[in-house]
Amino acid sequence: MSEDRVYGRNPVLELLRRGGRRTDEVAVLSGAHGPLAEVVALARRAGVKVSYRTRDQLSAMAGSDDHQGVVARVAAAEYQDLEALLEIPAARGEAPFFVVLDQVQDPRNFGAVLRTAEVFGVHGVVVPKHHQVGLTDVAARTAMGAAEHIAVARETNLVSALEKLKKSGIWVYGAAVSGGVAPAKADLRGPLCLVFGGEGEGVRPLVARTCDGLVSIPMVGQVGSLNVGAAAAILCYEAARQRQIR
Amino acid sequence: MSEDRVYGRNPVLELLRRGGRRTDEVAVLSGAHGPLAEVVALARRAGVKVSYRTRDQLSAMAGSDDHQGVVARVAAAEYQDLEALLEIPAARGEAPFFVVLDQVQDPRNFGAVLRTAEVFGVHGVVVPKHHQVGLTDVAARTAMGAAEHIAVARETNLVSALEKLKKSGIWVYGAAVSGGVAPAKADLRGPLCLVFGGEGEGVRPLVARTCDGLVSIPMVGQVGSLNVGAAAAILCYEAARQRQIR
Repeated sequence: MSEDRVYGRNPVLELLRRGGRRTDEVAVLSGAHGPLAEVVALARRAGVKVSYRTRDQLSAMAGSDDHQGVVARVAAAEYQDLEALLEIPAARGEAPFFVVLDQVQDPRNFGAVLRTAEVFGVHGVVVPKHHQVGLTDVAARTAMGAAEHIAVARETNLVSALEKLKKSGIWVYGAAVSGGVAPAKADLRGPLCLVFGGEGEGVRPLVARTCDGLVSIPMVGQVGSLNVGAAAAILCYEAARQRQIR
Repeated sequence: MSEDRVYGRNPVLELLRRGGRRTDEVAVLSGAHGPLAEVVALARRAGVKVSYRTRDQLSAMAGSDDHQGVVARVAAAEYQDLEALLEIPAARGEAPFFVVLDQVQDPRNFGAVLRTAEVFGVHGVVVPKHHQVGLTDVAARTAMGAAEHIAVARETNLVSALEKLKKSGIWVYGAAVSGGVAPAKADLRGPLCLVFGGEGEGVRPLVARTCDGLVSIPMVGQVGSLNVGAAAAILCYEAARQRQIR
């Protein structure tokens, strides 16, 4: 089996019995009954995404025909609970500093954000469970070891997760291409969460409406938008600058 | 032929007769004589890199056996002369703002820097001719159109290019992991060139010694270094912020 795939009924059951904290997705043969029901039930209980595929799709995923109708995608690092993330700033005696990614699809972008976040002292990164790339091998390699050092939580509902952050006194800023305040004019010194959208659409409207405010990086030129990795680097740098790291 | 490969004697001769401004490299069959000598002579005259390969290597490069011993890698956009780059700021009535990349190998990193540079009003990007990825399809796609809007010059000797910039009154700052001044404390408002190193080694020592000064982005955490795309995003943003774009 490759580093990030586990297949076959018993290996996947083993994986899920250990809690599913390292499992991105369990793919099951469409229309299968019997022994696979236990896999599906365990995955659901652990909060792991379940998808249904054809036999050929499963073989392609596993890189083998010996999958017995089930293939799991395994993350390169363990996910944490949002509650555990929220305890990190107090343990370090620092004002909370979180990053939320809203449906980033490209593992290299995800890895780049993890690396940048770790470098600027971000306490944890929150991602949605769906339409978001997981902690894949490519993401972990791009993060250059940061995936081992920064806590990542997956949430089914990103809006609820943001509401939880806000209730604990964290100010939530969404990154918008336009219409927000300039980063240098935003106060990023207190308990802070920065929200970045995925490659295509940016932050989704409902997520943006949940933010306390929007920041927009001033731009000139023809292209008119930054890659999510570049935007995250700039805003994490600006926040760290205001917080006077060093 | 694919978008970024031209092969066969006559097609490559045609390409080089148009000046070589769009050619990254001409690969020629090792030990070949006769008709290929004209190709090599023309490439050399146009300042295009020439490399020697086996027949199989050329077939792999071309994706075809019909290469007649020569394959050219074609850039996704035209390169400019350094002199042409230096005229851009005056034409726009702005203080010069250039970016130099020292041996960036990854086309996605190159493309990301081009996109970021274009967004922050950089007048041109200078790269070395050797050990540096060219304006490949992947670089251009990652740049999201920026490769069409920002001037790129290739120089055989990066140190001479920097000396030329300095002679025209531009202050050259090299990005270093440590030992430099914090970006917010560096004066980035005047005629400016920012130099970034490649993925492995950063800015080479001789190139760093040619810089007027070094800047280092303050970092915490375990990873301790930023991807070149993230570093370029932060320093171009910081320069643009100091120059008060908008």
